[in-house]
Amino acid sequence: MASDPLPSWQETGPRAALLDFVARVSDPDHADFVPAPERIAVFDNDGTLWSERPTYFQLLYARDRLNQKAGEDPALLENEVMRAVAEGDWDGAFSGGYEGLIGVVTVSHSGMTVEDFQTDVRDWLAGARHPETGRRYTDMVFAPMLELMALLRDAGFTVWIVTGGGVHFVRAFAAETYGIPPERVVGSTGPIEYRTEPGPPRIFKLPGLEFMDDGPGKPVGIDRQIGRVPIFAAGNSDGDYAMLEYVTSAPGPRFGLLVHHTDAEREFAYDRDVALGALERGLIDAEGRGWCVLDMARDWSAVWPER
Amino acid sequence: MASDPLPSWQETGPRAALLDFVARVSDPDHADFVPAPERIAVFDNDGTLWSERPTYFQLLYARDRLNQKAGEDPALLENEVMRAVAEGDWDGAFSGGYEGLIGVVTVSHSGMTVEDFQTDVRDWLAGARHPETGRRYTDMVFAPMLELMALLRDAGFTVWIVTGGGVHFVRAFAAETYGIPPERVVGSTGPIEYRTEPGPPRIFKLPGLEFMDDGPGKPVGIDRQIGRVPIFAAGNSDGDYAMLEYVTSAPGPRFGLLVHHTDAEREFAYDRDVALGALERGLIDAEGRGWCVLDMARDWSAVWPER
Repeated sequence: MASDPLPSWQETGPRAALLDFVARVSDPDHADFVPAPERIAVFDNDGTLWSERPTYFQLLYARDRLNQKAGEDPALLENEVMRAVAEGDWDGAFSGGYEGLIGVVTVSHSGMTVEDFQTDVRDWLAGARHPETGRRYTDMVFAPMLELMALLRDAGFTVWIVTGGGVHFVRAFAAETYGIPPERVVGSTGPIEYRTEPGPPRIFKLPGLEFMDDGPGKPVGIDRQIGRVPIFAAGNSDGDYAMLEYVTSAPGPRFGLLVHHTDAEREFAYDRDVALGALERGLIDAEGRGWCVLDMARDWSAVWPER
Repeated sequence: MASDPLPSWQETGPRAALLDFVARVSDPDHADFVPAPERIAVFDNDGTLWSERPTYFQLLYARDRLNQKAGEDPALLENEVMRAVAEGDWDGAFSGGYEGLIGVVTVSHSGMTVEDFQTDVRDWLAGARHPETGRRYTDMVFAPMLELMALLRDAGFTVWIVTGGGVHFVRAFAAETYGIPPERVVGSTGPIEYRTEPGPPRIFKLPGLEFMDDGPGKPVGIDRQIGRVPIFAAGNSDGDYAMLEYVTSAPGPRFGLLVHHTDAEREFAYDRDVALGALERGLIDAEGRGWCVLDMARDWSAVWPER
C-alpha cells in the first residue's frame, strides 16, 4: 500500500473531498476524467501557501529595504504612507489602498535589473526572521499545501501560483520553496524595459504598478498567462473570490478551496476584520457555490514544516 | 539506428549546427549540459513557423471579418486604413504603422469573449484559402520547423511561441498545428476584462492594443510570461533581433537562428525591401553574433507539408 499522500491533513471533510476529486479527474475510466493538459491547478500565495501576518511578507521586505535607503536619504520618509511602512504601522500603510503603496514599492522594487532584484530578495529571505515566530519566512509555508501540490502533480496536474504579490518577488523563491518554476507564477507587475546599455542586455524594473493581480485581476492574469480555465483553485481571501468563481463556474468537474485561518494557537485567526486579505463574501457564498472551506484548526494536523 | 529527426533539412550547415547544439546541452556528461527546466526554446511565428505573404495571416482574417461587418455598416470603410485593409492594399494598410491598424483589429478582435473569438478564428482557418497557393493557412506551416520543434521536445526542451501576432489568435490553433499549448504562447495583447454578467463568468475582449510583442517587446514578453532567459531563439525579421540578442548574449550555450526567405520558387523571396517583417540588421550582424542564418532554398528539402 502506498504511503499517505496527505499526512498533515486530518481525517475530515476537505481531505476526503480532495482525494476524491483528484482520483476522479485523473481516472480515464471515470465520467469526470479530464485530459492531463487541462488538469491545471492555481493557488493564491499569501495566506494560502504561506502565512501573511502581521502583513504580506513582501511588504516586510519592502520595509527593510526602505529603512536601509532612508538611512542615506531621510527625505524618503516625509511621505505619510512611507513613514507608516517604515514603522510597521500596517493599518496606516494601507490607508491609501494599494495605490498608496506604489511609492514604497518603487523604492524597493525598481531601478535595477530583474536578476539583481531577485538576488536581493533571496538574500533577504535567507537572513530575515518573522517578528513573532522567529522563523525564516520560507519556513512559514503550509506543510499540508506542499503535500496537496505534490498530490496534484503526481496525478498529472500542472500547478500554478496566481498571486497578488509581485511576480518577480514570488518567482525569486517559488522554485526552491514550492517546486513551481518561474513560468508558472502569475502575479502583479510593474513596468519593465529591455535595455542593452550598459551591456549585457537585461530586463530593467521601472517605477510604478502596471497590473494588480487581485480580485477580478486574477481571472485576467490567468487568461493572459495560462490561456485556459483551470479546474482547481485555492485561495483564502475575498481577493480570490473572482478566481474561484471563474474556475468553478465553467462546465465539467471543478474544485474551489478556501483556507479559513481559524488557528490562533498554531498560526493566526482572522477573517472579516482585517485591513487586508479579509474573507467575508467567500464564507457567505461558499456553500451555495460548492466551495470547500478548510478550517485550519480542525483540518490540519500540522501547519508549518517541522524545524 | 534511429530514424532521421530532420528529414526535411538538407545536409548543410544549419542541420549539423542544430543537431550538435541539441546533443551538447542535453548530454549530462558534456561541459555544455543545461538542466532540463532551463532548456527553453522560443520561436517567432509569422515567417518563422508559417508563411507571412502577402501579409500576416491574422490580417487576412481581420480583412475578411471587416468586409463582413462593412456589408452591414459601410461607414466602417470611411477611414483610409480600413479601406486599404478591406481592399488588400497592404502597403496602404501599414502606412500608419501598427498604430494605424488598431481600428481594424478593434472591429474583428474585440466585443466578444475570448472563447467566441477563438471559435471564430478556428472556423475561419478551417474554411479560408491562401490567395496564391490555394492552401489552408495551417497547411503553410514549415515542415522543417515542425521537425525541429519535435527534436527539441524529444531532447527535453520546452517549446514556446513568442509572436507579434495576437495572443488569442495564435492560441486558437497553436495546440493543434504546432503542439504548443495556450500557456506557451506569448503574443501581443489588447485589454481584457473579467465579466460575470450576463453569466457565466467569462473574459471579454475590449478595443485597443495594450502590448506589442515585437522588437524590444519580445524580451519584455519573455520576462513577463517565461521569467527566465531561453537558451534557443528562432526568428526571421528585425522584429526578432532583440529576442535573439537577449537570448544569445546571456552566458552559457545559446543558439540563435534566423530564417532567410530565399525561395521564390517554393515559398517567397524577400528580406530588406518589404513594408513589414523586413530582415536587414539581422543579416548584417548575424556572423558577428554567431547566429545561424538559414537559407530556405539551400537548407530545406521541403517547405510546406505534403498535401
